[in-house]
Amino acid sequence: MKRIEHIGIAVKNFNTSVPLFEKILNTSCYKFEKVDSEMVNTAFFKVGESKIELLQSMDENGVIAKFIEKRGEGLHHIAFEVDDIYAEMKRLVSEGFTLLNKEPKMGADNKLVFFLHPKETNGVLIELCEEVKK
Amino acid sequence: MKRIEHIGIAVKNFNTSVPLFEKILNTSCYKFEKVDSEMVNTAFFKVGESKIELLQSMDENGVIAKFIEKRGEGLHHIAFEVDDIYAEMKRLVSEGFTLLNKEPKMGADNKLVFFLHPKETNGVLIELCEEVKK
Repeated sequence: MKRIEHIGIAVKNFNTSVPLFEKILNTSCYKFEKVDSEMVNTAFFKVGESKIELLQSMDENGVIAKFIEKRGEGLHHIAFEVDDIYAEMKRLVSEGFTLLNKEPKMGADNKLVFFLHPKETNGVLIELCEEVKK
Repeated sequence: MKRIEHIGIAVKNFNTSVPLFEKILNTSCYKFEKVDSEMVNTAFFKVGESKIELLQSMDENGVIAKFIEKRGEGLHHIAFEVDDIYAEMKRLVSEGFTLLNKEPKMGADNKLVFFLHPKETNGVLIELCEEVKK
């Protein structure tokens, strides 16, 4: 893993949470982006070489809405950047892990991503991602 | 905030979780440390400029044991490094936040730390820390 690419935080409402995290982090939100495949809006903040990604559901049946219903707002996932996402998928499968998607999919912020099943990772939803070369 | 210093993950048992995260992160645990004030054992892994800190309770009534009892194993807190912890405490109090400790205390890894109340931070337990100069 090269670095923590971002930490995903599930929130109910950007109207209150974006200004809140601007205060906490003492930096402005620099980007909003919709990710239709996950039915979420995202808001990004830079911290060192990493990002904080707020996640707000676009739909009451979306994964983030369901997460908040069950556990409340809070830390949702951790994403690590890798150099070669296909090699990393192969390595993790050979170590016995279950991938939540068999092929990388497009995530926010121009990334190919896949997720590990939290039942096998101490309850932590882990995303691996690689920036798409333009 | 200079960087994500570490992500804290609550686990039940280092015997299974340390080898598990060594596999996931593809790197060896480089340090174990007891933090008596928090009644926890910690295990550290490097990822870029940040760390993953596994937290195992030393006592069934400790905060990590209580957290796992209530929510299960998983993401516990996020820690940001700052240059001047006293200035940062002052800034956050002036922004209206409640500090969980009024004076910085010694945390793991030679750090002065304080925490923000998760009720005011979208359910995210946030630690601010500054490395103690020797």
